[in-house]
Amino acid sequence: MTRRFQKKAREMTVRDMGETGVIEWIRKVAGSGPPAYVKTGIGDDCAVLRPSEGTLLLATTDTLIEGIHFTATTLSPEDLGWKALAVNLSDIASMAGTPRSALLTLGLRRETKARFVESFMKGFQSLAEETDVALVGGDTVESPSATVVTLTLLGECAEQRLITRCGAKQGDHIWITGPLGNAAAGLCLLLEKAGVPAVDYPSLVQAHRRPRPRLAMGRALGESGLVHAMIDLSDGIAKDLDHVCQESRTGALLTADTIPLSPEMVRLAAQTGQDPLEWALSGGEDYELLFTASPADDSSVIALAEKVAGVSAAKIGAIVQGSGIRIKKGDNAQSLPPGGYRHFFSDL
Amino acid sequence: MTRRFQKKAREMTVRDMGETGVIEWIRKVAGSGPPAYVKTGIGDDCAVLRPSEGTLLLATTDTLIEGIHFTATTLSPEDLGWKALAVNLSDIASMAGTPRSALLTLGLRRETKARFVESFMKGFQSLAEETDVALVGGDTVESPSATVVTLTLLGECAEQRLITRCGAKQGDHIWITGPLGNAAAGLCLLLEKAGVPAVDYPSLVQAHRRPRPRLAMGRALGESGLVHAMIDLSDGIAKDLDHVCQESRTGALLTADTIPLSPEMVRLAAQTGQDPLEWALSGGEDYELLFTASPADDSSVIALAEKVAGVSAAKIGAIVQGSGIRIKKGDNAQSLPPGGYRHFFSDL
Repeated sequence: MTRRFQKKAREMTVRDMGETGVIEWIRKVAGSGPPAYVKTGIGDDCAVLRPSEGTLLLATTDTLIEGIHFTATTLSPEDLGWKALAVNLSDIASMAGTPRSALLTLGLRRETKARFVESFMKGFQSLAEETDVALVGGDTVESPSATVVTLTLLGECAEQRLITRCGAKQGDHIWITGPLGNAAAGLCLLLEKAGVPAVDYPSLVQAHRRPRPRLAMGRALGESGLVHAMIDLSDGIAKDLDHVCQESRTGALLTADTIPLSPEMVRLAAQTGQDPLEWALSGGEDYELLFTASPADDSSVIALAEKVAGVSAAKIGAIVQGSGIRIKKGDNAQSLPPGGYRHFFSDL
Repeated sequence: MTRRFQKKAREMTVRDMGETGVIEWIRKVAGSGPPAYVKTGIGDDCAVLRPSEGTLLLATTDTLIEGIHFTATTLSPEDLGWKALAVNLSDIASMAGTPRSALLTLGLRRETKARFVESFMKGFQSLAEETDVALVGGDTVESPSATVVTLTLLGECAEQRLITRCGAKQGDHIWITGPLGNAAAGLCLLLEKAGVPAVDYPSLVQAHRRPRPRLAMGRALGESGLVHAMIDLSDGIAKDLDHVCQESRTGALLTADTIPLSPEMVRLAAQTGQDPLEWALSGGEDYELLFTASPADDSSVIALAEKVAGVSAAKIGAIVQGSGIRIKKGDNAQSLPPGGYRHFFSDL
């Protein structure tokens, strides 16, 4: 069997292939030349991994369920494979870690076509190869209705470089690594809520479908020793910054005018009568990093960001005494409740 | 908040609680006094773990989906919490490892009651405490219809004690740690296929609902250095032993008369006109260990099993040249295809 399904095989359903067939195929795509870190990959009861001596192990997991987190309209199978890995990589990035190995669980309907698995794995593997992630295990099960993807990602971090959510200090400046709200605007287009063709805004659609986790920036920030607290922006800054504030026992003051917005997103908002700031503050799924550092290190942060490809560093506010987040717009400041994307209230 | 929901809170739905509410509650149940191995548990982007120096890391994951692996009739929420952990512990046991920490993903319907989460966690936590497993992270998401539970378990093993599937040698004896077919018989009762009240056979029902992974035996076998290959019996011996044979490039010959069967299972089979051997060979979900060792070590294996509570050691066949499994019944031997429980063909 080659790494691509034979033409005929692609038309088979998961039911025809059976569990063993699906696993065997995934193993062939993912199993070529596992790194030295992997002692035993796919095909035993557990993956057996050799962690580097003296480093911390990072473990994170995220689930994408059809009808909740995606539909056939919003994500292609290839996008889904990419995104399942990307959202987990973002968690590793936000702790300044290096990703290592992944366990993939696929819950598939019987009628799912083999080519779905092929496309999924193509998307997954393209990001896995780019980020040196080895697929080392998982589970393949039948799902009665919705396709379910759970990815568990393991990574490493030297103890002195680890950055958690809980070290923000009063007076710290708050930074983010790129514009906010693009993914939310892209999702709005894909759900045809905007009344505007999605093809008019490819960068916004791409932001929703193919987020690029900030691994290099996360590691660079960990090595720099500049950062007090860090989190990735998955649920929207309103909710994610609130986690940092709660864990660090501080409050935050944002300045609305300094939050970076892409011209495409602002243009779509104008075209559809949306408030671009709402997408930026509570849209979610941007997968940028938010971090805090001492005001004395402003120029060092800017210099560092300039060295890392694909990111910018925008200073959007400060950590303050107290609790909760306030946002200043012109001369007015108002409270920003943690009303980010809440899963059980989601209305995709 | 106490470790039990207030009476009123238990009637709340997951939708009322929101994701943060569910996570906060799980954190309180699971978070008390994490071991030194856990640097940062639930509540950051990743769990941060400190592996013991010089040991291998084991990683395994299993998913249980409502309507495929369980229904409200076959497993109570408490059973489900127990079993989600147990099936993963069994994978760690089969490699002679020690379990350490777990990531739990719950996909819940909006209408799911808070008391479901309470009961689930009660079952989970009772086995977690017994086996020293720390819940360190996970994901809580909405599921449109079926409840989905994915558990990822991390464990450790000293390199020289690790046992994989691939070391079986021609001439080895094949051993298992307990009777087979009880869980399949129990499931048959619970699905009311037997036409016999489930309450008449509590031990069979218990075998399906509360499997007891053979952690102590797995570790003892790893320490003994006696074992060449090992696997846990999750899909039925027909399929699981086939994995060992394939990975070890050998065949196997089983002797039907030596496969241990419980008196209750044999009695139910007689009562319902089933072949007890069919339950034993392809029923699955026994979570006993199957291992191979040199015939010269027969007495050492028996002596070792006598020291471990709750297990027996039954010699059921031998590893032979060639490939595939044959089973001998009296003077006849027939081929045993790997027709274990196949997920995409399951018919619960």
